[in-house]
Amino acid sequence: MMNEIRENAMLQKLASPFHRSPLQLNRMHESDAEILLPGVTTESAIAITIDSVVEEIATGLYDDPWQIGWMSVMVSMSDLAATGATPIGIVISEVLPADCQAAYLEELQKGISDACAACGTYVLGGDTNFAHGLSLTGCALGTVATGRRLSRIGCHPGDLLYATGPLGRGNAYAACKLLQPRSPSIGYRPLARLAEGRAIRGIATACMDTSDGVLATLDQLMRLNGVGFSLDENWESALDVEAAEQARKMGIPPWLLLAAEHGEFELLFTTAPADESRLMAHALEMGWQPLRIGRVVHAPAVRMYLYGEIARLDTARIRNLPRAVGRDIRRYLSSLLEFDAEIRQNHDNTLTNT
Amino acid sequence: MMNEIRENAMLQKLASPFHRSPLQLNRMHESDAEILLPGVTTESAIAITIDSVVEEIATGLYDDPWQIGWMSVMVSMSDLAATGATPIGIVISEVLPADCQAAYLEELQKGISDACAACGTYVLGGDTNFAHGLSLTGCALGTVATGRRLSRIGCHPGDLLYATGPLGRGNAYAACKLLQPRSPSIGYRPLARLAEGRAIRGIATACMDTSDGVLATLDQLMRLNGVGFSLDENWESALDVEAAEQARKMGIPPWLLLAAEHGEFELLFTTAPADESRLMAHALEMGWQPLRIGRVVHAPAVRMYLYGEIARLDTARIRNLPRAVGRDIRRYLSSLLEFDAEIRQNHDNTLTNT
Repeated sequence: MMNEIRENAMLQKLASPFHRSPLQLNRMHESDAEILLPGVTTESAIAITIDSVVEEIATGLYDDPWQIGWMSVMVSMSDLAATGATPIGIVISEVLPADCQAAYLEELQKGISDACAACGTYVLGGDTNFAHGLSLTGCALGTVATGRRLSRIGCHPGDLLYATGPLGRGNAYAACKLLQPRSPSIGYRPLARLAEGRAIRGIATACMDTSDGVLATLDQLMRLNGVGFSLDENWESALDVEAAEQARKMGIPPWLLLAAEHGEFELLFTTAPADESRLMAHALEMGWQPLRIGRVVHAPAVRMYLYGEIARLDTARIRNLPRAVGRDIRRYLSSLLEFDAEIRQNHDNTLTNT
Repeated sequence: MMNEIRENAMLQKLASPFHRSPLQLNRMHESDAEILLPGVTTESAIAITIDSVVEEIATGLYDDPWQIGWMSVMVSMSDLAATGATPIGIVISEVLPADCQAAYLEELQKGISDACAACGTYVLGGDTNFAHGLSLTGCALGTVATGRRLSRIGCHPGDLLYATGPLGRGNAYAACKLLQPRSPSIGYRPLARLAEGRAIRGIATACMDTSDGVLATLDQLMRLNGVGFSLDENWESALDVEAAEQARKMGIPPWLLLAAEHGEFELLFTTAPADESRLMAHALEMGWQPLRIGRVVHAPAVRMYLYGEIARLDTARIRNLPRAVGRDIRRYLSSLLEFDAEIRQNHDNTLTNT
C-alpha cells in the first residue's frame, strides 16, 4: 500500500461536503484545470483553474513585485497548458497592503500585463481588497476541444515519459533566494507551456505540470494511474544547466532539484512509443525540443539512477516533508540532505554486501 | 462635474496597463461580471467574476466560519445574478491560518456547500494555501444568452427603479456586529437573486447588485448612464423591517441603511414603464415581490425625501468616506451622522428662510 499524501487527504476531506456538477468532465485530482461542458454542444469544453500566490510572498521566495505579478498569471496558465486548453483570459483578485506604494503597484501590474502578453491572453477583470499582507489570486479561463483535452489519467506501462523543457530551475532559484539571500540569485521567470500543451493533444496519454516539483508530479501521476515511473540513466542531462551549476556550488545533490517542492512549471507527459515520431514531427515544426526522461512501468514506484544504482524513492516522504518540517527552509533542506545520505548509505551497504 | 470616486479612479489606474480581450463584450465598470464570447457561436456567452472575502474577516464583520463560507460563494453568485446568468459553478481559493482547527474548517466548508446548494450550483475545484490570516476568493462561472444579458448600462430618464427585495439589512447587521459586539446581532444570510436576474432579462434596462450599499450602487449607475435617480417619497417602506427596527434602537437615521457600504446583495434594476406589467406578471408567476423605489431622471444626482423635503445627496462623499476615515467603524458612523446633521441643518435653514 502506498503511503498517504497528506495534502491529497486534506483536499479530499475539504471537498467531501461538495456535490459534483453533472457538467464537469474530470473527477477530483484528475486534471490540472477543471473541465466543464456548459454549452448545448459537447464539442467544446471550458477549462477553469484558480491559484493563489501567498506562501511564496510570505516566505520571501517572491519579493519582486514584477515577478509576483508575473507568477500570479503563470501558475494558472500552466494549469490550462496541462489540459491542452487555449486561454481566454484571467480574472485576478489582488489583496494589497494598505500602505502599498504606487511604484510597487505599477510593477505588480506590469508583471501581470507582461505575463498575459507572453501567453497571448488578457486580464478580463478583478477585485481589489486591502489587508495586512500582499496576496494575489488568479482564475484562468480557457477552451478545449472535448475529445482532445489532456488529463492526468491514461498512461500505461511502456509509455515514454517526457518533459517539455529543462528541469530544476524552480528549486535552484528557491535555494539561492532563501538560503543565500544576499548573493545574486539565478533568474526565475517560468513561461506556461501553452503551445506545447496544445501540440501534444492526441499524442500525450497523461499530462501534468510540475508546479510542485518533478518527483511530486510523478508521485501524483503514479497514484492516479496505478503505474510507476523509471527515470532514464542519463536524467541529469534534462536538468537546467544554470540550475545544476547553482546546486553544485551550494553542495546540493542534483537529484534534489527534482525532489523539492518549488517547481519549474514545465509539463511532464507520457506517450505511446508508436506516437513518438509524430510528437517529434510536431515539435520540430514549432522549434521545440521535448526531453525524454524515462518511461512508465508496472510497479507503482518512482525509480531513478542515483550513485550508480537504481534507487526506489519514497516519494510520499518527499511530498509530506514541507509540512513535516513546518515550512522551515533550513530544516527542509537538511531533511532532504538526510534523505540523500540514507540513499548513499544504502548504496554503500549494497556494495559492501556484494 | 461629478466628484471623483476614489475607488473607480484607483481601479482605472490599476487596469491601465492591460489590453482588452477582443472576446469580451463588456467594458470596464459596465457589468457586475465579465462577459466573454469564447465559442464559435455568438449566441451563448460566458460570465465570470472573482471576489475575495478578506476585509470583512479582518474587521470581525464576519466571524462565523459557516457565514464566511456562505458569503465567499454568494458575493460572486450575486454578480452573476446581476448579469442574468445561470451559474455553472465556482472555484474557490482558501487561504487558511496554519493553526486552523478541524471543526472550524468543517463549518467553513459546510457554508460553502450550503450556499452552492441554495444557488443550485457546484464547487468545481479550488486551491488551498496556508498563511497568517483567513481569506477566501471565489470565482464564479456562468452562461448567459448573448442577446439577453443584463448590464449596468441602458437606463433612460422616465424608467422606473426597482429593488429585488427589502433593503438595509447589510448595514443594520454591520452596525450591530461592529458597534455592539456583545449584543445578539440580527441575522445576515443574503441569497443571490439568480432567478430574479434571469426573470428580468429583456425587461430591465440596467441592473447592478447592491454589494456596496444602495446609494453607492445608484451613484455608479448614475455615472455609467449619465442620468440621475429620484427615490419615491415612501422609500422607507422598502427597508427590511428588522433592519429598520435595529437602526431605530441604535439611534441611526434610517436612510443611513442605504448609505453605508455593507450591502444586502439585492439587485437594483430599471425598466421602461411600458414593461412594468410584464415584469409584474413574471414576478407573480414566481412568487416574487419586486419593490418599486424610484425612477430615473435627467439631472445626474441621487435625490430622496429626507426630513420632509427632497435632498440632493453628495453620493461621491458617501462612497469616498470609508477610505477617508481609514476604515475605522466608529469614525465612519460619526462621519455619516455628521452628514445627516448637515442635511437636517440645511432643511432647518430652508424652513427658516421661507
